[in-house]
Amino acid sequence: MTDEPRRRRTTRAARAPRSTAHHTQLRNPFAPAEVFSADQVEHLHQQALTLLEEFGLKVLLPEARARLAVAGAAVDEDTQMVRLDRGLVTAAVATAPAEFDLVARNPAHSVRIGGDHVMVLPVGGPPYVSDLRRGRRPGTMADFETFAKLAQRTDVLHAVSPAVEPQDIDLRLRNLRVGDAGLTLSDKPMYANSRGRASVEDSFEMCRLALGIDEATFLARPHVWTNINTNSPRQLDVPMCLGIIDFAAAGQVCIMTPFTLSGAMAPVSLAGALLLQHAEALAAITLSQVVRPGAPVVYGAFTSNVDMRSGAPAFGTPEAGKAAIASGQLARHLGLPWRSQAASTSNVEDAQGGYETMVSMMACVMGGANVVLHAAGWQEGGLTASLEKFVLDVEMLRIVAEMFQPVPMEVDDLAAASIGEVAPGGHFFGTAHTLERFESAFHEPTVFTRQNFGQWTDGGATTAAQRATAVWELWLETYEQPPMPDDCRAALDEFVARRVAEGGIAAD
Amino acid sequence: MTDEPRRRRTTRAARAPRSTAHHTQLRNPFAPAEVFSADQVEHLHQQALTLLEEFGLKVLLPEARARLAVAGAAVDEDTQMVRLDRGLVTAAVATAPAEFDLVARNPAHSVRIGGDHVMVLPVGGPPYVSDLRRGRRPGTMADFETFAKLAQRTDVLHAVSPAVEPQDIDLRLRNLRVGDAGLTLSDKPMYANSRGRASVEDSFEMCRLALGIDEATFLARPHVWTNINTNSPRQLDVPMCLGIIDFAAAGQVCIMTPFTLSGAMAPVSLAGALLLQHAEALAAITLSQVVRPGAPVVYGAFTSNVDMRSGAPAFGTPEAGKAAIASGQLARHLGLPWRSQAASTSNVEDAQGGYETMVSMMACVMGGANVVLHAAGWQEGGLTASLEKFVLDVEMLRIVAEMFQPVPMEVDDLAAASIGEVAPGGHFFGTAHTLERFESAFHEPTVFTRQNFGQWTDGGATTAAQRATAVWELWLETYEQPPMPDDCRAALDEFVARRVAEGGIAAD
Repeated sequence: MTDEPRRRRTTRAARAPRSTAHHTQLRNPFAPAEVFSADQVEHLHQQALTLLEEFGLKVLLPEARARLAVAGAAVDEDTQMVRLDRGLVTAAVATAPAEFDLVARNPAHSVRIGGDHVMVLPVGGPPYVSDLRRGRRPGTMADFETFAKLAQRTDVLHAVSPAVEPQDIDLRLRNLRVGDAGLTLSDKPMYANSRGRASVEDSFEMCRLALGIDEATFLARPHVWTNINTNSPRQLDVPMCLGIIDFAAAGQVCIMTPFTLSGAMAPVSLAGALLLQHAEALAAITLSQVVRPGAPVVYGAFTSNVDMRSGAPAFGTPEAGKAAIASGQLARHLGLPWRSQAASTSNVEDAQGGYETMVSMMACVMGGANVVLHAAGWQEGGLTASLEKFVLDVEMLRIVAEMFQPVPMEVDDLAAASIGEVAPGGHFFGTAHTLERFESAFHEPTVFTRQNFGQWTDGGATTAAQRATAVWELWLETYEQPPMPDDCRAALDEFVARRVAEGGIAAD
Repeated sequence: MTDEPRRRRTTRAARAPRSTAHHTQLRNPFAPAEVFSADQVEHLHQQALTLLEEFGLKVLLPEARARLAVAGAAVDEDTQMVRLDRGLVTAAVATAPAEFDLVARNPAHSVRIGGDHVMVLPVGGPPYVSDLRRGRRPGTMADFETFAKLAQRTDVLHAVSPAVEPQDIDLRLRNLRVGDAGLTLSDKPMYANSRGRASVEDSFEMCRLALGIDEATFLARPHVWTNINTNSPRQLDVPMCLGIIDFAAAGQVCIMTPFTLSGAMAPVSLAGALLLQHAEALAAITLSQVVRPGAPVVYGAFTSNVDMRSGAPAFGTPEAGKAAIASGQLARHLGLPWRSQAASTSNVEDAQGGYETMVSMMACVMGGANVVLHAAGWQEGGLTASLEKFVLDVEMLRIVAEMFQPVPMEVDDLAAASIGEVAPGGHFFGTAHTLERFESAFHEPTVFTRQNFGQWTDGGATTAAQRATAVWELWLETYEQPPMPDDCRAALDEFVARRVAEGGIAAD
């Protein structure tokens, strides 16, 4: 055995850059993998319905309890416990759409959510940011802007995310600053935190002003997305309930994501964690559909597990992989889009980070995830947004995006004549078939090297992470701000200035 | 959105090590993914048959041409070209078994090849070896022994491979030394290079002596495996032909692997590279079945692509991933086991190595590979066997092995009562359900850290690769040589000593 490459060189031709336009609208061509039988999926679903009927969940917002009570739920105001019967849940979930469009400021960047469509999003939520030049530090507004620009200029990322928490901005002004930056630095779909009613209303207004649309147009289609984490186990807190209600009322997109960490906030058995996840997702979706039947929701799933030694959360685990594939089955059982994520436990941009992120991505690909959150830049179990990890993840995402493309098999692709033309033991470097296609035949990496050992050593024997610094710097240098009509920009600026002058939003 | 882990600690309990006995016999529970329709698979297959009929291939060994001529092939002795008609190929391939056992010296380590079984193998073939203590250097016999020991003690690796070429051993003695080391340091199935008739016969004899079996027992079942790379395009050289003939005649396992690098030794279009791969595999399999109908073979597939800029081979590419999944379809179309590989282009144990290896492994998992070669230690496009990469890859392989295990869903697993027992917003750390299961609930990593940032920084802020050095050192320290009966050992020693005294084998 050798399996040993024969290393040859061709003259480097002037190359046309390969189009990656197909990365902006991704579809997963593979049939979804399954870890459960159809009977098991139905059994788990029925068990979740029973759990909501018998044990229920705690709902901290009076308005949410009142809305659910009106819909037929059994509410105990003393304990704030809400029990939902299976008829109510089943009818409510049935009104949620299987697919919908999320409209962007630039229509070319609108994305379809559901079916075989795949929406890929950068990391969301970390308090820290890191890069190899400046190290790990608390996130700032400048860092948020950096990630917004990078998301804008990256074809395989389909919206801006709350990539890092800008801790230098007062909480009362943070939503305004973040919304303003996201809308002006990017023309991809808008993200808004659900941190209370006034905050959400500000976000919706900023979106309308930036897009130059009136309220009716805004309400008619999804323009903004948010992510709702339940307080597992079995609790919906006040901002979450408000977010679900306000996004549903406005017909905007809620990703309902129980963060069911097996062994901590969820049972130590994977089936138990999935049962809790499913019950919580059903309850949150039910609230949204009670508020507005047909409101766009995504079945979110973030079941992973703790480390057996320390109790610390772990990501990129086999348990998380199986839970993800199972979650896809549960979402399809409900006829809803499914959100998963690519994540890792590693504290640094090393091989562990690559393997773990790719293991989670494998589960997303195999299971057919419709929304992949945290897919670029997630590090340190989600506590840090890393710029080098962002570049490395984007490289991986482009590989996955290329794997989604078909293998053409026309006569020219099969190249039988070309095969006959090359002598046995010869090579195809100089054939007409090769020369016609060579420049655009293959995916070309950005930060993964294909230098041989000698070239690579001469170039400093760098790791991929070390090379990634120059890449995000280049991406920032060559970033171009997308245009916004002057009147929209003026209206947005005026609104933000006014709300800042008013002191922004009381932190809630 | 936060998706933010709540970090808690549990008392570290005395933990029972988690059994990984199921890693020694792996089955892939997922339905195979497809990149081609059934019609496309049949079309490509027919095109390959036409290619063998019309263009044929060059066969450098007169005996191979003679055997194929007797079976009905059209042979031109002047050009050494052999054309195979579709009837001959179809009838020959039909005699190859769909599944078979590869018998190990220790019956517990025998492996099934085919169906949903997955045999995982370490890297094979590199001339160089590398570790972070000693750097990159030409491989030696000591390095070969190191990898044989590591393969023996690693549950998710199922046989010894030619992990590194021992360049300090004279070529005439190399086969004897390598066979002796593999058989005495491991009781997993034996690998033998196919480097000429005398070499192969020595290997078979060493196997018989080590196992204490007579020739009839040896011939009755597969005990030894080899890998045959065709000289793409369309050529079988002398040692390859001899290997195919001798392994087939002895009923031993040939993995037939065209190394069809798209854009170099194969057409630049992926369909064309797959067409060439398929034609060459069919020809090699036909030769084996002409020699002995029913001889065990594996449909090998190593279609990757060159780099567009340099013409250098690239691994872990999206093209290789799609080609792998397609190859699984082609192998199943023939009713044969399929060999693929996990590979990377990276020169170092970095994130690129992790992502690329995992992308290839994803294709193996999705496509349902029966044999995954190069799965531990492959670096630098296969030119280096890295000890740290070996450790990192084994970590990944164990994650994949755990993903193959079912998610139990009995009443206890669903834990509905436990969910009802924990207060909303509470946690499951102290429940009876958790305490009963916690110690063995989850996969536990070896080299991937789950320390938080502070602990990890205090511990030296190491990368996974840096931590891997201590792991392979520990694995070597705690390696235990498997027992061999004294009479077998004496017979093997006597044979090797005699053949060495005779000067070994003329290099061919």
